[in-house]
Amino acid sequence: MSIISYIRTIADYPKKGVLFRDISTLFLDPRGLRKAIDGLVMRYSGAGIDKIAVIEARGFLVGAPLAYTLGCGLVLIRKKGKLPGSTIGEDYALEYGTDRIEMHDDTIVAGEKILLVDDLLATGGSALAAIRLIEKNGAEVYETAFLVDLPDLGGSKKLKASGYSVFTLCEFEGD
Amino acid sequence: MSIISYIRTIADYPKKGVLFRDISTLFLDPRGLRKAIDGLVMRYSGAGIDKIAVIEARGFLVGAPLAYTLGCGLVLIRKKGKLPGSTIGEDYALEYGTDRIEMHDDTIVAGEKILLVDDLLATGGSALAAIRLIEKNGAEVYETAFLVDLPDLGGSKKLKASGYSVFTLCEFEGD
Repeated sequence: MSIISYIRTIADYPKKGVLFRDISTLFLDPRGLRKAIDGLVMRYSGAGIDKIAVIEARGFLVGAPLAYTLGCGLVLIRKKGKLPGSTIGEDYALEYGTDRIEMHDDTIVAGEKILLVDDLLATGGSALAAIRLIEKNGAEVYETAFLVDLPDLGGSKKLKASGYSVFTLCEFEGD
Repeated sequence: MSIISYIRTIADYPKKGVLFRDISTLFLDPRGLRKAIDGLVMRYSGAGIDKIAVIEARGFLVGAPLAYTLGCGLVLIRKKGKLPGSTIGEDYALEYGTDRIEMHDDTIVAGEKILLVDDLLATGGSALAAIRLIEKNGAEVYETAFLVDLPDLGGSKKLKASGYSVFTLCEFEGD
């Protein structure tokens, strides 16, 4: 059974006409949680990844079990103003306006192999901003990994066109 | 070596005179991450916990690896307006004003044994609000678990006085 069956779809959220893919039901079911994380562990076990970078907040749910299981360090990428130490930041476009993500400036070292993890890939805006943060310190983005791809929103196409490898466990077409 | 050595202290954050206990350095070091989660796995393995409830956002980092390892479901408790489905909510006091946390109303069933997990216990306001959410549906809070206790801020005393068991992996006194 694909992990897609553990994901609930909520119509008209956050606004009319949008089908929201709700991963909270996947995490609520121990079989869904096990299957999702195992799928990533199987792919990245033995890959020589130094650190896993995760985007707040739902990315924490995916990246933390993966880092714990693989024995990697976890790099937190958070919304503006959430990290207490000295940070570097990157802006990215939203439908209206911009948002900003930040990372402690001493978390990534030149030459490290970093896996970027988030729950869902839509337009790819936050993922590309996270990649810019990771590369600022001279580290290499080994791959980007997501539980869910919404290919119609163009993020996976954009990431691949920029030269990054994309791995997803399932996709919803027609979004 | 205690997990306390993996936690960085940042002076004067978020305001002058406060010593901020920064757990991002614990997660960045694979040994710190392993030790913290293993400490919780050892305590709760075989305890018959049905679900682990986690408070956004740093609680996700602790509860997700624990739920994955123990084979429990994960219940997300999030800030107001973040969950897409039908929710129940609870307000709690901040230093100035109030905040609100929410939980999907169909995630917890009467009679279930729930472990509440967060990264840090300070005044206990959000933990007590989370307990009220869990108990609304007739579930039992088996225990509350935190990586870090700041006992001088009174949260652990307050939780215990309200009849809840508190487990923490380390504490900083004099905060």
